Amino acid sequence: MAQTVEELVEGLERGERRALARLLTLVEDGAERLREVVATLYPRTGNARVIGITGSPGVGKSTLTNAIATALRAADRSVAILAVDPSSPFSGGALLGDRVRMQGHHADPNVFIRSMASRGHLGGLSFASPQAVLVLDAAGFDDVIVETVGVGQSEVEVAATADTTVVALAPGMGDGIQAAKAGILEVADVFVINKADATGAGKLESELRGMLEMGHALEDPDTSGVSPWWPPIVRTVAVRGEGLDEVVAAFGAHADWLADSGRGARRRRDRALHLIREIALEQVRLRFARIDAGDDPLLDKLADQVARRDLDPYAAADELLEALDGG
Amino acid sequence: MAQTVEELVEGLERGERRALARLLTLVEDGAERLREVVATLYPRTGNARVIGITGSPGVGKSTLTNAIATALRAADRSVAILAVDPSSPFSGGALLGDRVRMQGHHADPNVFIRSMASRGHLGGLSFASPQAVLVLDAAGFDDVIVETVGVGQSEVEVAATADTTVVALAPGMGDGIQAAKAGILEVADVFVINKADATGAGKLESELRGMLEMGHALEDPDTSGVSPWWPPIVRTVAVRGEGLDEVVAAFGAHADWLADSGRGARRRRDRALHLIREIALEQVRLRFARIDAGDDPLLDKLADQVARRDLDPYAAADELLEALDGG
Repeated sequence: MAQTVEELVEGLERGERRALARLLTLVEDGAERLREVVATLYPRTGNARVIGITGSPGVGKSTLTNAIATALRAADRSVAILAVDPSSPFSGGALLGDRVRMQGHHADPNVFIRSMASRGHLGGLSFASPQAVLVLDAAGFDDVIVETVGVGQSEVEVAATADTTVVALAPGMGDGIQAAKAGILEVADVFVINKADATGAGKLESELRGMLEMGHALEDPDTSGVSPWWPPIVRTVAVRGEGLDEVVAAFGAHADWLADSGRGARRRRDRALHLIREIALEQVRLRFARIDAGDDPLLDKLADQVARRDLDPYAAADELLEALDGG
Repeated sequence: MAQTVEELVEGLERGERRALARLLTLVEDGAERLREVVATLYPRTGNARVIGITGSPGVGKSTLTNAIATALRAADRSVAILAVDPSSPFSGGALLGDRVRMQGHHADPNVFIRSMASRGHLGGLSFASPQAVLVLDAAGFDDVIVETVGVGQSEVEVAATADTTVVALAPGMGDGIQAAKAGILEVADVFVINKADATGAGKLESELRGMLEMGHALEDPDTSGVSPWWPPIVRTVAVRGEGLDEVVAAFGAHADWLADSGRGARRRRDRALHLIREIALEQVRLRFARIDAGDDPLLDKLADQVARRDLDPYAAADELLEALDGG
């Protein structure tokens, strides 16, 4: 028998893994009931600390995330990991990968790992992942880690969702710093140099410090009276569990700063704003999709006219929006 | 004196590089005049062949793109390269990079290279890059190459814009095939295995063939009567200019197939549809931004209510959309 959303959310609060998995699948699939899911569990959210981890392919993100989870467990915090994979827009979640990653945690009910693809969403993971975070938050995990590949706008979206954003780097990657361009540097609350036992870790750290100092020098002086946050750089060798206590300590220090400076409240408000916008845009996309598939295929007609150069694409977009506003 | 858009487009048609650069900057900045730019030049577009090149960091995309441009020039085709960089959402175009990349082409007026970031756009590069392609198309280039990092949804967006999509791979990358997941495989019209002189090229090619055959086996039988396109796999050593003639031949074969099968017209129609939707969504985003910044900061109020858990985000999105429809 299908359970109601209310029953699933009650199961979630009792710690039932089946309810958790089912709710995440509803989010991932972009199901009709997604609105009901979020409305029902939303009052139970707002307690988890959300940590974003991003970095280029090859820096050892999965291993690092796993090691961070182990360190957080040692500090007696329950941990959920949401591994967001924007490179597989057409495929489902990597279930085998989840099982491999659970190694070392599979006997621990206070660790939960889930990979997520964006299969059900027109708006992609910027729409789905914050809602999956809400499910994990309502499930009562102390920490929700969102791990994503840091190329593209995904890292900005991680930052829009997280309380604390970790940018992971590793020495010896051709485009290590190059990939960690302005965008990534600006969103980082904590830098982790993983594989710190490899050649070039010192060089990478000094390059990074140089870029950070240059960035700070270019910033407008802060007149808010709030002491600014300087992102710490922590070296780890995740595969051997080295440096993880320092990472966990950096999370704690950043959480304290968020609370003391009032920036935590602002960040949560910005996160709410981001979520409202993404949901509203998804509704608009769904309306477009309905126009496309409807009996009066306005968008099809417009596409033909634009392809024939009878109409320019801005004029076509105007017609589409008028149809929406009137409909 | 500022030139009018009409003057700029006339300059573009006379082959003036200054007009071309100026129009691309208007696109990149998302200027107020962007609508006028596209409306004015749109009737002059539709002649260029658009080639998308995507692949993970480290496969040698820039070198490959440059070598392909050289091979196309040898076939007496003029070439524009748009290097789209989704990893720098906050920074401007990589001008130094463009100058480095122009090496070997700087004396040739029939090659043009431009890097592009997404600084002016709420909708990012999925909004900006198709419009930059329109500028380069109207400028009269035979081939417009759009090069992008193939992690994230960018490769899908490249495919939505291109006549022919190249997925570049290289042996010896830990996540070579892994990164080339379902999404990338499905959009590829031509595969290039670059650095084919390195160890593992044969293994990569046979893995790729295996995945392609598995993919074909899973497809529904085609009852349209159109002979299907089997993406060729071409090996190159771009840094030594090897294999590029085969790549250019593959482009020609694919162009012939697009014309013969009627799929080219369908692809151009889908491209028009994609562009209309992106423009319409950008207009909605701009409306949201105006609500945020306006005297009646509805979105701010909603964000506060959602952050306090007084309102769920779907109900807030409904209020936002109602305000738009009424406004």
